Amino acid sequence: MKILIINPNSDPEMTAAIQRSAEEYAGTEFGVVCKPTPGAPLFIETYEDTLQAAPGMIQLLKEEEEGFDAFIIACHCDPNLEAMKEITTKPVVGIGEASMKLASMLGHRFSVISTTVHSIPNKEAQVRKLHLEGVLASVKAPPEEMAGASDEEKVLRAAQLALEEDKAEVIVLGCAGMSGLDKRLSAQIGAPVLDGVVCALIIATGLVKYGLSTSKIRRYNPDY
Amino acid sequence: MKILIINPNSDPEMTAAIQRSAEEYAGTEFGVVCKPTPGAPLFIETYEDTLQAAPGMIQLLKEEEEGFDAFIIACHCDPNLEAMKEITTKPVVGIGEASMKLASMLGHRFSVISTTVHSIPNKEAQVRKLHLEGVLASVKAPPEEMAGASDEEKVLRAAQLALEEDKAEVIVLGCAGMSGLDKRLSAQIGAPVLDGVVCALIIATGLVKYGLSTSKIRRYNPDY
Amino acid sequence: MKILIINPNSDPEMTAAIQRSAEEYAGTEFGVVCKPTPGAPLFIETYEDTLQAAPGMIQLLKEEEEGFDAFIIACHCDPNLEAMKEITTKPVVGIGEASMKLASMLGHRFSVISTTVHSIPNKEAQVRKLHLEGVLASVKAPPEEMAGASDEEKVLRAAQLALEEDKAEVIVLGCAGMSGLDKRLSAQIGAPVLDGVVCALIIATGLVKYGLSTSKIRRYNPDY
Amino acid sequence: MKILIINPNSDPEMTAAIQRSAEEYAGTEFGVVCKPTPGAPLFIETYEDTLQAAPGMIQLLKEEEEGFDAFIIACHCDPNLEAMKEITTKPVVGIGEASMKLASMLGHRFSVISTTVHSIPNKEAQVRKLHLEGVLASVKAPPEEMAGASDEEKVLRAAQLALEEDKAEVIVLGCAGMSGLDKRLSAQIGAPVLDGVVCALIIATGLVKYGLSTSKIRRYNPDY
Amino acid sequence: MKILIINPNSDPEMTAAIQRSAEEYAGTEFGVVCKPTPGAPLFIETYEDTLQAAPGMIQLLKEEEEGFDAFIIACHCDPNLEAMKEITTKPVVGIGEASMKLASMLGHRFSVISTTVHSIPNKEAQVRKLHLEGVLASVKAPPEEMAGASDEEKVLRAAQLALEEDKAEVIVLGCAGMSGLDKRLSAQIGAPVLDGVVCALIIATGLVKYGLSTSKIRRYNPDY
Amino acid sequence: MKILIINPNSDPEMTAAIQRSAEEYAGTEFGVVCKPTPGAPLFIETYEDTLQAAPGMIQLLKEEEEGFDAFIIACHCDPNLEAMKEITTKPVVGIGEASMKLASMLGHRFSVISTTVHSIPNKEAQVRKLHLEGVLASVKAPPEEMAGASDEEKVLRAAQLALEEDKAEVIVLGCAGMSGLDKRLSAQIGAPVLDGVVCALIIATGLVKYGLSTSKIRRYNPDY
Repeated sequence: MKILIINPNSDPEMTAAIQRSAEEYAGTEFGVVCKPTPGAPLFIETYEDTLQAAPGMIQLLKEEEEGFDAFIIACHCDPNLEAMKEITTKPVVGIGEASMKLASMLGHRFSVISTTVHSIPNKEAQVRKLHLEGVLASVKAPPEEMAGASDEEKVLRAAQLALEEDKAEVIVLGCAGMSGLDKRLSAQIGAPVLDGVVCALIIATGLVKYGLSTSKIRRYNPDY
Repeated sequence: MKILIINPNSDPEMTAAIQRSAEEYAGTEFGVVCKPTPGAPLFIETYEDTLQAAPGMIQLLKEEEEGFDAFIIACHCDPNLEAMKEITTKPVVGIGEASMKLASMLGHRFSVISTTVHSIPNKEAQVRKLHLEGVLASVKAPPEEMAGASDEEKVLRAAQLALEEDKAEVIVLGCAGMSGLDKRLSAQIGAPVLDGVVCALIIATGLVKYGLSTSKIRRYNPDY
Repeated sequence: MKILIINPNSDPEMTAAIQRSAEEYAGTEFGVVCKPTPGAPLFIETYEDTLQAAPGMIQLLKEEEEGFDAFIIACHCDPNLEAMKEITTKPVVGIGEASMKLASMLGHRFSVISTTVHSIPNKEAQVRKLHLEGVLASVKAPPEEMAGASDEEKVLRAAQLALEEDKAEVIVLGCAGMSGLDKRLSAQIGAPVLDGVVCALIIATGLVKYGLSTSKIRRYNPDY
Repeated sequence: MKILIINPNSDPEMTAAIQRSAEEYAGTEFGVVCKPTPGAPLFIETYEDTLQAAPGMIQLLKEEEEGFDAFIIACHCDPNLEAMKEITTKPVVGIGEASMKLASMLGHRFSVISTTVHSIPNKEAQVRKLHLEGVLASVKAPPEEMAGASDEEKVLRAAQLALEEDKAEVIVLGCAGMSGLDKRLSAQIGAPVLDGVVCALIIATGLVKYGLSTSKIRRYNPDY
Repeated sequence: MKILIINPNSDPEMTAAIQRSAEEYAGTEFGVVCKPTPGAPLFIETYEDTLQAAPGMIQLLKEEEEGFDAFIIACHCDPNLEAMKEITTKPVVGIGEASMKLASMLGHRFSVISTTVHSIPNKEAQVRKLHLEGVLASVKAPPEEMAGASDEEKVLRAAQLALEEDKAEVIVLGCAGMSGLDKRLSAQIGAPVLDGVVCALIIATGLVKYGLSTSKIRRYNPDY
Repeated sequence: MKILIINPNSDPEMTAAIQRSAEEYAGTEFGVVCKPTPGAPLFIETYEDTLQAAPGMIQLLKEEEEGFDAFIIACHCDPNLEAMKEITTKPVVGIGEASMKLASMLGHRFSVISTTVHSIPNKEAQVRKLHLEGVLASVKAPPEEMAGASDEEKVLRAAQLALEEDKAEVIVLGCAGMSGLDKRLSAQIGAPVLDGVVCALIIATGLVKYGLSTSKIRRYNPDY
């Protein structure tokens, strides 16, 4: 089994980090390749960024469709996910949907850690699109006074605050760029911490093994 | 006041029809221009169509931003609307959001007439995004046995069925291509029928006159 | 075009303030008259106040129906709005519904500024009636320790707190008596501030111009 | 204990029917008096009817407040109920709220039988106001082809259809004028049938006996 | 009329306290007996506790079914309530459902006081099961720094905080063990305080007197 | 890795069928054992059945906890699932939750096929508990006139009707007893068909491999 992870941005470092997390989960059980999106911005933050990543994502999916068994969209805002599910008959899984649906099975409510305050409303809109607003504790960004701290310290602090202030029981890392922090963070806070890349691999490999994919009855059928 | 109507597809006929409806409403009170989207598909139906329209829509908005007071996105599925609101500081109105929010003020529940059964789930997802699922009677496509009938007959039949079967009290034309059918249809069924292009002009001209536009506090702010 | 603004209370000062805001928006484009409600309380705050305004509002609407093209109910709690929509076949718009539906198109979530803590639950019930609870950041009253401050200072402070504490992106003035504060307030807080009277004029004049009014299919049909 | 049942209309026959149902439930345990509303319409169906009943209802409540322990509003649309709860410190119960809240404890979903198709949307809006839309099977009016049948036959047929078509498990009589049909109907359809007058008596007498009434913390407090 | 109150735990002290509250409400009007559950834990807090109480509760209900007119489940989390409603054709009322449905009729929003922070998520899940999340202000536990205070002081403080911080207007005692605190607490905070045992008696005796019970149409029918 | 599948009923045939489906998915990748529940009913249909299975399920989980890496509850109504998640620190997955959460990622809306009309309301309550009511097309039982048909014909017909009448795009087998029908059924109807046992294995094995389990922060923590 071979899984292609499409990193919707063009950042080689983030691509490498995602590749490492994926390989660590895959071990020798299945093959996994993470590719950056040609022509995409270095980071996906705005709605325009999302659209600018689209041509490259479509091209990548169509070019690589033959050679892989399933596809993962590795940006936590699930950019252009509906189109990806529509284009191919093979399974496509977003790291946002995978991590938040799994989180909803592991505790009463989950919080998503976002890098900036700016992306909180966008994330809330995404959570609602996934019909998960009833199990969301909060979308939590690190406090602004921590501007000088390391990324790991910031994520840790935001996660602690989500547990204390918002009564979250599960933490979801809200950015593919946080990939790799999950285990250490979980040990520190005493609660499950979900890396979307791994969560999407769980779902995608399961679907491939089971022989399931997106329904082509209507919504995700490109031919109508 | 000058309003630019961006037709997200590249069909010259639909562009001309939208232009006519808009001029009829505008009269001599304000200027209105409808332009097709360069490089876009002839018709927007799939999620991929939506993304393929994006580069041309962004280009059109940026090129014309200076010369107009507000922008209307004239496809009823409001393609790429969040990005359009984010890119400019001037008002941007989707014909889907405008027509369905106005419809919610005119009766108990509204139905949206869609051209095909294929677009019913996509439209339902859009209605939920707009927080209007509680006032939606149905998304209604013409019965498949009417395949040979004229477009106007099909829309009429679907609207009648929405009133009878789904207890709709207001009808929303679910495609910019139905522009111009509103008045005749309303006379035939005895209920308000809303053309999204006119509805968006009501909102957009009102916002310009009042001096209001999209909040740049967070969600639609491109600089963060 | 002539619009009648029914002020559901009997306060001549508030009636004059509404008239000024309305004329400023109308300019020479359409005629607008604001009238107080005969026999109504000086201020509408309680549920009983709402009912005591009803006979005068009904009388005013019936007496003036011929001479105007549309009617606005200029109290932000939209008192007796369903009955007004039922009685006449001409458009009727509440300043509460108009301002909050427009606000939902301009940002992620809006807050309504109310004069007193007392009216917060009533306003929340109204927001739910309009199916807008999913886009409400908060109903915000000025902090009680500001009892001695001017009305404008109080509204400013409440709006600032709504942005900071409740993550509102748009502010709605929750009382017709705040009419006129919108522009200054918006400049101070850097976010859209909506005066319901102007918002209702946008919708009402648009409906008249388009030839649309309340559906008489069932809910708002007085003859059954 | 003495309960005043306010019939919001002025129909002496309906007042007598309500009185009979109430006395049958009360037996010798408590006193109950049903009074029609002075100046109200003969039947409450439209929103304007509701407002025209208001002055008489307020007058009746204020005049009789001293002499009774609790008040019931005996029209299933709960007209002006918020104001009634606000005006007095004694318990006020609507037959709509009482019957539908009790129904929600007796089965999976309930249907409300309404006399006419006209009142279906109004009833749906009321059900939502009571936060009961999630346990509503349907609001059901008798089929129009039964125009010539007796009231009892019509209600029976509507109830049967609600069970078969809408999977209701409990039936609520949606009009005080149906008072007295409950037991026979229940025997015929094999499901609980709730008369709102009796349901309101259950709640109102319980509140009096327990010493509970409407909270005056904020929403229903006339002094602010 | 005779009501059996099933205390799902096996604590004789709590059983006696419930018996006292019940008798005080019943007076000489009806008979009431509270029995502990054989084989049940001393206190019901976890999900496993709930299941361990089940065999004894089923046995008690079946053994006593003949001799009583209705049954009350006197633990505020309504343990095994669906099964109890299914097993007998006589009315069964949970003190959780009864108190929270009544509370929703007495004010804008209610708070439930829980003994520990641990049971907050379980209570929130129960509130949602009852379709009451829209009228819940909060589930409130006493602040942890009050560990040394008396139970009554703790409940009082939690109730005060619910009113101030969460804008509750009605307080529901979230544990049968708080039975008897209602009147004193209500006097101290100036808001209605509901003891679930009394609330369930109001509903259960009303149902018996009216001749109503659980619908056996489908959901609660053991024979299918 | 070794997974224990707890069949909440005591039927050896159904246990064997589940074992076969599970082994087919597991192949040589992981070990899987399905055990019936000692003392449980032969089939779980009523709420009482659920409780009667509880002691055996708890006993089985506690006895086998050491020897397995994760546990699956193999009855589609997820009986006693909260308690199972609470008792052990290892992952526990219900076949209902797993199949319906996966289904929500594969199409616009899903339908659950239930064996009898009786279990429709119970299933609807479960769907709501999982916060999935917004993506449910319907719970569908075979038409009653098919009483004489084979189980497979009945499920096929119900699935076809769900696609045609309720616009489902994905089918979920609503009973562990339907295990094994998925592939043939999917080929016949042209839409994904999900067997909950396999879905739960996807999630459970993924969680084990990733090192994740139920949060013990509060809701599912037995020690408080």
